[in-house]
Amino acid sequence: MATPLAIIAGQGSLPVYLARAAALQGRAVILAEMEGHPAQNPDSLPVFAYRVEKLGALFKALRKFGAQEVVFAGGVPRPKLDPVKFDLKTMSLAPKFLPALRSGDDGLLRTVLGIFESEGFAVRAAHEVVGDLLPAQGVLTRHQPGPVDKKDAARAMQIVAALSEADVGQGAIVAQGVVLAVEATPGTDEMLDYVAQSAGRWRPDASGQGGVLFKGPKRGQDLRVDLPAIGPDTVTRAQKAGLAGIVIEAGGVMVLDRKDVVDRANDAGLFVWVTPIEAGT
Amino acid sequence: MATPLAIIAGQGSLPVYLARAAALQGRAVILAEMEGHPAQNPDSLPVFAYRVEKLGALFKALRKFGAQEVVFAGGVPRPKLDPVKFDLKTMSLAPKFLPALRSGDDGLLRTVLGIFESEGFAVRAAHEVVGDLLPAQGVLTRHQPGPVDKKDAARAMQIVAALSEADVGQGAIVAQGVVLAVEATPGTDEMLDYVAQSAGRWRPDASGQGGVLFKGPKRGQDLRVDLPAIGPDTVTRAQKAGLAGIVIEAGGVMVLDRKDVVDRANDAGLFVWVTPIEAGT
Repeated sequence: MATPLAIIAGQGSLPVYLARAAALQGRAVILAEMEGHPAQNPDSLPVFAYRVEKLGALFKALRKFGAQEVVFAGGVPRPKLDPVKFDLKTMSLAPKFLPALRSGDDGLLRTVLGIFESEGFAVRAAHEVVGDLLPAQGVLTRHQPGPVDKKDAARAMQIVAALSEADVGQGAIVAQGVVLAVEATPGTDEMLDYVAQSAGRWRPDASGQGGVLFKGPKRGQDLRVDLPAIGPDTVTRAQKAGLAGIVIEAGGVMVLDRKDVVDRANDAGLFVWVTPIEAGT
Repeated sequence: MATPLAIIAGQGSLPVYLARAAALQGRAVILAEMEGHPAQNPDSLPVFAYRVEKLGALFKALRKFGAQEVVFAGGVPRPKLDPVKFDLKTMSLAPKFLPALRSGDDGLLRTVLGIFESEGFAVRAAHEVVGDLLPAQGVLTRHQPGPVDKKDAARAMQIVAALSEADVGQGAIVAQGVVLAVEATPGTDEMLDYVAQSAGRWRPDASGQGGVLFKGPKRGQDLRVDLPAIGPDTVTRAQKAGLAGIVIEAGGVMVLDRKDVVDRANDAGLFVWVTPIEAGT
């Protein structure tokens, strides 16, 4: 059924992808962007700029558009709320989401999903809307991971798994067995930049293996929202950080713009390896 | 007994402290510094510059000095080894330490300690040589942690505990419930600088609580080596990172130059809180 789709659109190119894929299916699409944080909108789709203080207005706009399904795409900053501006809906939901705002990402996302569901919307995963976002396991590039890369990947997987216990982070960068960086709330791009600018000099052998970025979803994460993703920009940043390659967990990390990702990685001599975590750990 | 003491001296002021404390006890002190990484030596103590490639020479020099006890103080980078230069002793120990060089910090340290012990040296903890490095629990400063700070501290403790499972990191920075940074191999100073320069803008409320640095030893860590430490410089960096205070695990984190730490924190309006981890989690 070509029912209208609402994309709760944050940063990056994922919302554009989803909108185009939905359009190909003949669906009308509305973007809901956080006020002050405009989403990419090259196809001039209808947009509703929401404030968390005015959730009543958001739900009303989505219903008016006929959207019964919503998909979350792209991160948004945790909002700085002005309680004076709360509308009735936000006020009634405040006991739910205010405590969640101070919890880990997972807790907050679960709460947000629950709110949309309790308002009668079906929440879809991005990869349900666009079929090929989750590549099958294998090495996507000409360049292949070597034994040192695989050991670095295993170490990074171990760290992400441990961090998962504390509901934080979805990535780590390990080079020659040394943990250069662990992902926190600022995310993968910042982590890669930090390695490029500063942490990279902690490699034991500056001329040795550059190390790997591993990304995977947190254990128990709701795969409908905030599934980690890499894109062409991730490859460029990984190259600047001097990495040998990128390792992502099969079925748990989206690859946006896959052709461009692979082309850039091939040009840069990086590998992109999609693997179940059992294989490396 | 005022027996000679060898300090395996790395970065920072801890070796100076230990040397002065040992001198007060009437002990002769020799510093062993890694070649290319000179230790602070304001008191012009005898120094032996070692290379990991020439461990035979190091052990010989320490024995010649009469040192039966060694204490490790201050971090050194993981050495970039030239196997061509290995002496007989290093060659015989290579099967032990080469694999450990690619393991986590704990594994490497355990191996290094084991090597010194098998050579007949007794390895002492820094806080065995200097009695007051580990402050008792309590708030050392005029400024006290508030409820938000305590929640941030509990969250950071949770993260460090989880990371401990993967033998990495001894610290995390949390502000208003958001995990700004997780410590990896580059250490606390780099993490604080990263928050000052970049990650700090991820605080939900820029004018809200600045957050806390928590530091604690890894579970099961050998407390004789690489016990985490804070000093006056940590306070200055924490201030630059906009933090509200520093939380350290009682009995597990050394405070160097305690008077200066407390004075600087009082001047900066920061708290320094020494607490068992049970209290916060």
